[in-house]
Amino acid sequence: MPIQLSSAAEEVKNTDSAKPATTATPAAPATASKNLIVLIGDGMGPAQVTAARYYSKAALGKDKLNLDGYYVGQATTYADPGEDGGVFVSGAVTDSASAGTAFATGNKTYNAGISISNEDVSKPFASIIEAAEVKGKATGLVTTARITHATPAVYASHVRSRDNENAIASQYLDSGVDVLFGGGKDFFVGKEEKGKRADKGIIGDFEAKGYKVVENTDSLKSLTAKNEKALGLFGRSHVAYTPDRDNTIPSLGAMTEKAIEILSAQKNGFVMMIEGGRIDHASHANDFPTAVQEALDFDAAVKVAMDFAKKDGNTSVVITADHETGGLSLSRDNIYELNIDLWGKQKKSSEFINAALAKAKTVEEVRAIVSENTWITDLSDEEAEFIIKGDGSSYKQEGAYNAVVSKRLLVGWAGHGHSAVDVGVWAYGPIADMVKGNIDNTQIAFAGAKVVGLDLAGASAEMQAKYLYPKFKITREGAVLYPVKALAAKLGATVAWDEASRSVKVTKDAQTLIVNVENNSVTLNGKESSLAANLDNGTLYLSLDAFNQLTGTSMKWDALSERLILK
Amino acid sequence: MPIQLSSAAEEVKNTDSAKPATTATPAAPATASKNLIVLIGDGMGPAQVTAARYYSKAALGKDKLNLDGYYVGQATTYADPGEDGGVFVSGAVTDSASAGTAFATGNKTYNAGISISNEDVSKPFASIIEAAEVKGKATGLVTTARITHATPAVYASHVRSRDNENAIASQYLDSGVDVLFGGGKDFFVGKEEKGKRADKGIIGDFEAKGYKVVENTDSLKSLTAKNEKALGLFGRSHVAYTPDRDNTIPSLGAMTEKAIEILSAQKNGFVMMIEGGRIDHASHANDFPTAVQEALDFDAAVKVAMDFAKKDGNTSVVITADHETGGLSLSRDNIYELNIDLWGKQKKSSEFINAALAKAKTVEEVRAIVSENTWITDLSDEEAEFIIKGDGSSYKQEGAYNAVVSKRLLVGWAGHGHSAVDVGVWAYGPIADMVKGNIDNTQIAFAGAKVVGLDLAGASAEMQAKYLYPKFKITREGAVLYPVKALAAKLGATVAWDEASRSVKVTKDAQTLIVNVENNSVTLNGKESSLAANLDNGTLYLSLDAFNQLTGTSMKWDALSERLILK
Repeated sequence: MPIQLSSAAEEVKNTDSAKPATTATPAAPATASKNLIVLIGDGMGPAQVTAARYYSKAALGKDKLNLDGYYVGQATTYADPGEDGGVFVSGAVTDSASAGTAFATGNKTYNAGISISNEDVSKPFASIIEAAEVKGKATGLVTTARITHATPAVYASHVRSRDNENAIASQYLDSGVDVLFGGGKDFFVGKEEKGKRADKGIIGDFEAKGYKVVENTDSLKSLTAKNEKALGLFGRSHVAYTPDRDNTIPSLGAMTEKAIEILSAQKNGFVMMIEGGRIDHASHANDFPTAVQEALDFDAAVKVAMDFAKKDGNTSVVITADHETGGLSLSRDNIYELNIDLWGKQKKSSEFINAALAKAKTVEEVRAIVSENTWITDLSDEEAEFIIKGDGSSYKQEGAYNAVVSKRLLVGWAGHGHSAVDVGVWAYGPIADMVKGNIDNTQIAFAGAKVVGLDLAGASAEMQAKYLYPKFKITREGAVLYPVKALAAKLGATVAWDEASRSVKVTKDAQTLIVNVENNSVTLNGKESSLAANLDNGTLYLSLDAFNQLTGTSMKWDALSERLILK
Repeated sequence: MPIQLSSAAEEVKNTDSAKPATTATPAAPATASKNLIVLIGDGMGPAQVTAARYYSKAALGKDKLNLDGYYVGQATTYADPGEDGGVFVSGAVTDSASAGTAFATGNKTYNAGISISNEDVSKPFASIIEAAEVKGKATGLVTTARITHATPAVYASHVRSRDNENAIASQYLDSGVDVLFGGGKDFFVGKEEKGKRADKGIIGDFEAKGYKVVENTDSLKSLTAKNEKALGLFGRSHVAYTPDRDNTIPSLGAMTEKAIEILSAQKNGFVMMIEGGRIDHASHANDFPTAVQEALDFDAAVKVAMDFAKKDGNTSVVITADHETGGLSLSRDNIYELNIDLWGKQKKSSEFINAALAKAKTVEEVRAIVSENTWITDLSDEEAEFIIKGDGSSYKQEGAYNAVVSKRLLVGWAGHGHSAVDVGVWAYGPIADMVKGNIDNTQIAFAGAKVVGLDLAGASAEMQAKYLYPKFKITREGAVLYPVKALAAKLGATVAWDEASRSVKVTKDAQTLIVNVENNSVTLNGKESSLAANLDNGTLYLSLDAFNQLTGTSMKWDALSERLILK
């Protein structure tokens, strides 16, 4: 049963009950669901979808993708260009962090920002997963990327930079998210285990909180609905690409199936996000055959989710992409053809093949590697030399190899980055009517919250009362300092510049703090103080103590998550 | 009132009348329309649409395109790869002729085929315009391309090759289409008027049939609903690009408005197609700024059509593209940005600028031309030299110029041809529910026919009883010959090969025709005959007389339209 019916749903119910049961009018469609499944094809632009369908039709004899039956619209994806605050200027072309923040929380932000606002002192935005936690629902995040990568991260963490994956892993521990499946073990283990954490590992902390930890297909399978909390780490970094997996590594569909089994056993319903995370990676590398396989791996997970939703009868499903990757074109060089019969003939991902390619020194070596891994037995000297030299991007030999392969497959790429084309939206259940047509990606969050009865604004307000995410700098001495103007404004203090004394005056209620920028000396209410100040490129920074004394607060700095704890 | 309600509509009506008038149930949506407007953005792929919206937002302050409110789905666009007949092999990447045949008639065909089947002896397919003629509806074709170009052509003509634009113009004369607005005057006038027709011009023939002929904005404006038939030719070839137009040349919106004024005055309703024909041309050339302007010119026509449909209350509108052109990417070279502020700063189309560029011999000349027509005052020697040299495609200097401009605008192209990505579908009125989701482009024809009550199959059958479109060859002596095996099969005759006598035996009822392929001698019922035969690359050809005598028919060859008139 729905936890909370929207007012529209109530109206419909009343209308229904007022009518005689014998009218031929079909029952009014439901407007609420108990469960919500969000699926994200990272980097899955329109051309990636069309390509997967062509391959599915030609090579697998399936005319349509599982996705196809649920197409309802398209979404704009742009990042926050910062016109309002004017602080950050992100591109019209979004990254996964900004796009994810949009469809997880309903707010635009800058590229790299994980569910925080686009400001010098950012506030956190609650996601539908966090709002579901408030509501007592079970929650889950499933991905073939690192579980600490941007798309899952936006649902259950808040950091100024997506690169801070240790902080993201730490925040998951307190997030309450019940099922976390993906790669990224490196950010859960310390250096002693060759991990990326400076401090000790946190897998034990997850276990102490009741998480069952699994790391391969067999242990994933062994989980049952009784394992209410589970952490699955199926790779040190990302989960291996589809063509590179052995049977110890689960598919996205297998992870999805188990996650749904666990979450659907909870009585209050669930909200989960499932990401096909590596369509993006393969497209970044311009590895077309692998991008197609990753799209199909994602499409298989769509089927798992849809099969559950149809059987369950009380689940909404919404599917979209965060952006297109690579500027993929299905055709190139003015040829009205696609060599679809060759799309399945690369045996491994280019990432895998590149382990050998990057070491190859001669045309013969390159030719042998390419011949072993593909259908290409006639690699020209020119092609081999280009591969040895690299494509001039950070993808080097791999990029050059993929350029050679793409040319033969008759597909084109505009680069190794993202593009701004609108992405598809697919949906099933009551959410479908709320996301159809041409929408902005933020609408995915609003519709998701509405359909399962979540209070996104309330959950955000609660977080914003607890945390701020300021820009900061660390001095040579190790002191953490914060930008005065931005943070003072956020705390309700006033900042004024006095040219005569070359000093900045910060006031809050009866408190006054003056910083002489010539010598960084600080006085508080007329008394000299040892508070640290620092002028850097025209921005004045102060220590947290200064702000605490000025405003009578006792904020603390959470160094790992790079946030101020307000109370 | 609708001319014909579908059975579904009848059901809904019955259900409605059986219910008490006081129930709160909303009225069942209409399932039929009196009028149908089809709008085609030629070459308008997903990226072209997104680009137009970005420009509209940044430069014009309009957040959404007129299109955006009507997005309902996407369409697959592939050409007929010829699996069935196996005769032609077209690419997975469609051209406008094949795509147009699909959404005008509901049938796939090969690239270049204009509303005929993919066979050695093709049969014609009736379009929704032709089926509307049968039904007594008014009809219209409006485009910024030549009116004889593939997209309008598929609605009211049938030819083996889209290049036969003289035949297309001639067929329009007999088509009954009431309003024809576009470019392409060259195919309506003879050589004496510097036209492309070998015979005399046919504008007089249109006038004799009651068409009012107009050639500029003023004479277009002078048309009223009393001009039941009108032929507007606003260019010798295509209508000038939006940035190149002076006020003598109407916009697509102006043509659309007048066409609707004329057609909507007819009592039986109307079916019309409006094409933004030059989004494709600009994209072929990789002229990004002009492609954006052409998309906006199209979008303005969408508003005219939608405004009419809403006011009228009995009109369905469906909008799609035939294919994407150019493999456009909104971003390139791994840069997460678009230089949208520069997108409006090219003053004319690259086609216009190229008139000067193609003659430039020095770096200085190129730099002056580019500086005069764009914001670029710092063209490098390298860029200028590349423009002089050309991009290696048939677009030469223009292609190179566009490559330089596109790089600075941060957009990418995969080539000068089409690509296979799914295209958008937008709709308004009862047709909307019939074209939503992921559909094939043939569904556009079926839905259009259904919503206004047309009989596509019946109209096709009527045509197929009259005409066949065989492959043919013309001998050095000027005789027209037809492939025996394919045409005989079509006419119900039997063809057999006799190795011993090195001869082909064709039989129909009691008639027998034998061709000795060693000497091309022909006997009919045992008697020597002077019928022409010719073996060419393994295919045996015979004259029309031979087929007529064999099958007792009196077929005639229509040389201009390249078709057999069966009776």
